[in-house]
Amino acid sequence: MAIKGVLFDLDDTLYNSSSFADRARKEAVRMMVDAGLDTTEENARKVLQKIISQKGSNYSGHFNDLVKTITGTYDPKLIVTGIITYHNIKFALLRPYPNTIKTLVELKKMGLKLGVMTDGITLKQWEKLIRLGIVDFFDVVITSEEFGLGKPNTEFYEYAIKKMDLNPDEIVFVGDRVDRDIIPAKKVGMDAIRLLEGKYKNAEDTVSQYKIKDIYEAVDIIKNLVSSNEP
Amino acid sequence: MAIKGVLFDLDDTLYNSSSFADRARKEAVRMMVDAGLDTTEENARKVLQKIISQKGSNYSGHFNDLVKTITGTYDPKLIVTGIITYHNIKFALLRPYPNTIKTLVELKKMGLKLGVMTDGITLKQWEKLIRLGIVDFFDVVITSEEFGLGKPNTEFYEYAIKKMDLNPDEIVFVGDRVDRDIIPAKKVGMDAIRLLEGKYKNAEDTVSQYKIKDIYEAVDIIKNLVSSNEP
Repeated sequence: MAIKGVLFDLDDTLYNSSSFADRARKEAVRMMVDAGLDTTEENARKVLQKIISQKGSNYSGHFNDLVKTITGTYDPKLIVTGIITYHNIKFALLRPYPNTIKTLVELKKMGLKLGVMTDGITLKQWEKLIRLGIVDFFDVVITSEEFGLGKPNTEFYEYAIKKMDLNPDEIVFVGDRVDRDIIPAKKVGMDAIRLLEGKYKNAEDTVSQYKIKDIYEAVDIIKNLVSSNEP
Repeated sequence: MAIKGVLFDLDDTLYNSSSFADRARKEAVRMMVDAGLDTTEENARKVLQKIISQKGSNYSGHFNDLVKTITGTYDPKLIVTGIITYHNIKFALLRPYPNTIKTLVELKKMGLKLGVMTDGITLKQWEKLIRLGIVDFFDVVITSEEFGLGKPNTEFYEYAIKKMDLNPDEIVFVGDRVDRDIIPAKKVGMDAIRLLEGKYKNAEDTVSQYKIKDIYEAVDIIKNLVSSNEP
């Protein structure tokens, strides 16, 4: 079958998610210590990191818990100082990779259908696509919240393929995670390209057909797949 | 007793809350119609206004309900376009009144204890104080969420007075609402100044001892109260 579509992961695949959240948290902690949080920045970062790994990154009370852990109290000024700084820095740093838009433009010129499938809260993931300025490239956007199950469940991948209205062997998947992107994408029958970016860029990988260091390299790979499949 | 403290309402007393929310909603609706919400701006504003009056201004699903009402669907792109625009405009417009800081400085120079008591969600009200740049003027900040009951309950006023650690007749209250600020403040024994600002500035008023058009006028009134009470 000919390739007719490309399905992208979002976080760390279309933009640098890992570093922007880290930098936003670092600045938030710095401002909280400035505002009177009675500990060192280093310790506050350590405590915050522990809270995030325990409660998950979508938990909404990170800064409440940080202040509570360090001061034993509910201190709205410190909590809100953290939240405001985190959001200001996050939105200031939210940018596509330098070659993301160029890549999407090239794929669109090839007449391909484009989709995003991403773990996360629907409105938060759409907010990223809108703030990144790339939402209108995508014919299909699917979130784990919307489906009810996240990666690496193959049901979630099958749902995405159905939404793309294509067969699995007509779609190329692009993602950064071996375990949660590449393995399940291949399992359901898609070609898969791994982008070596983000927190997991050095993860062991014995399965990816294609590994790329810059998202724009996907264009040539997909061009080759399209032409090799032509009759 | 001598006057030793001033207790302020927040919304429409220290900054213009009514018009900034209206203007933010107006721009949000305009961007949503631009992004494909299939109705007129006028109709969308009308529908949004109805949702707000039914669900209250602290309900978090205004834009979800607006899109649902008009399109019958859950459309994350339209919803998030509304939310982002609303917040961007809101924070861009959030400013103290021209004379708010000058007033607070004068009262501080007089050695008075300052407090804020406000209806609303604790972290949201603190966020306003921090973004307005006035949080550090206040020795005491009390919200209805924190207390569990809002204005015009006199218990809420008595709680605020206790937090100020003063007697009611040592405190001057400043607010914009006759029914929710002035009447209960007087009932518990404080002097009360009504600022004629915001949505209710033309509300009938047969009870206020002092009515002012600019917050800075409060300084002279309070100075007179302080000196008339001196032994």
